[in-house]
Amino acid sequence: MSHEFPPDLKLGVYQAIYQRRDMRHFLPDTIDSAVLTKLFSAAHAAPSVGMMQPWRLIRITDRAVRQSLYDLAQEERIKTAAALDERNDEFMQLKVEGILECGELLVVGLMDRREDFVFGRRTLPEMDLASVSCAIQNIWLAARAEGLGMGWVSLFDPIQVGELLSMPEDSKAVAILCLGHVEKFYDEPMLAQEGWIQPGALEDVLMENSWDVGKAEKARQR
Amino acid sequence: MSHEFPPDLKLGVYQAIYQRRDMRHFLPDTIDSAVLTKLFSAAHAAPSVGMMQPWRLIRITDRAVRQSLYDLAQEERIKTAAALDERNDEFMQLKVEGILECGELLVVGLMDRREDFVFGRRTLPEMDLASVSCAIQNIWLAARAEGLGMGWVSLFDPIQVGELLSMPEDSKAVAILCLGHVEKFYDEPMLAQEGWIQPGALEDVLMENSWDVGKAEKARQR
Repeated sequence: MSHEFPPDLKLGVYQAIYQRRDMRHFLPDTIDSAVLTKLFSAAHAAPSVGMMQPWRLIRITDRAVRQSLYDLAQEERIKTAAALDERNDEFMQLKVEGILECGELLVVGLMDRREDFVFGRRTLPEMDLASVSCAIQNIWLAARAEGLGMGWVSLFDPIQVGELLSMPEDSKAVAILCLGHVEKFYDEPMLAQEGWIQPGALEDVLMENSWDVGKAEKARQR
Repeated sequence: MSHEFPPDLKLGVYQAIYQRRDMRHFLPDTIDSAVLTKLFSAAHAAPSVGMMQPWRLIRITDRAVRQSLYDLAQEERIKTAAALDERNDEFMQLKVEGILECGELLVVGLMDRREDFVFGRRTLPEMDLASVSCAIQNIWLAARAEGLGMGWVSLFDPIQVGELLSMPEDSKAVAILCLGHVEKFYDEPMLAQEGWIQPGALEDVLMENSWDVGKAEKARQR
């Protein structure tokens, strides 16, 4: 018996994968609450190492908290620009987040619980972040299918965000997610569109049986 | 203009998200090479911080290398069991990987390149793993739509796997992916089915404006 999806359903999966974009431009309209619940449920259906389900989704509905998150992202944006040296000015021209404009703002935290979840993490404790990332990718793809855009902002100091949201020491903020309606999805990734960087070829990331020094170098050159 | 997918395409996205399973039981049949290319392309369409595309996909076609990866996973399985203390025996009863049986075996490596990619990673350098995880989730969902199962094995020492595959110091193996045809997808996550752990409620991972101590404790109790 084949477990393959019918053509249209399969097409939907690939279309979400290819049309998903890291969005920074949003319309102010709010997201329907039933749709929002569908996105949260999609996140919660993600795989997780030893089924630890380490994701915590913090909805930001308080305008003052949203403003504080924006301020923290601005602070980090300036520090990042300084760290980028000669691309400083170019970086400052980029729109890197849509925190104030987006219809819905989330902070995603991960819960470490190292002592309780050893399975699959004895040598790779960072698998908790891997699980949270899969949950975020689920939201991204489900949002695209719903016609909504999402941006994953990682321009912030997790300690400052943790303090702002009273997060305990064994948790960590790993994403500010901007979600919302958009006028249009970028035709290609915004960083490519803006000439910041071009995507590399699939061919250069595929290897066989061992590390391929030549390909790794080629991927490094772009 | 609405960017929402038509109903069947949208259904496909949610169906992939909900019917995806972390598989450990496989049929020996090989994967059609055109389908395999579709899965790799899906991975390469993943989001990545600063568009660093840090994923490297190493196909294991050499039977001896596959056997060595199996041996390394077995070694780690025994160490994990020991670390699990009183659940040692119970853990050893679980089938935790399908490395030898699956039709296609991949090792996913991440390329650090800390000096080249600061954007979005100055305070959160681990965002490279987040990007690789999104790429892996893309493969997982595309595979499900193609009727194929996947299992993410993280029971290995990344240093040993790195040595086996001649990976350089600024790279790291983060996943052994078992891919292939399956007789049947588990109705629920295998760890729940086997009584190892039950999934928590969505409600307990949703918070608003700040950390919710009560909910965090409730999620911890399961």
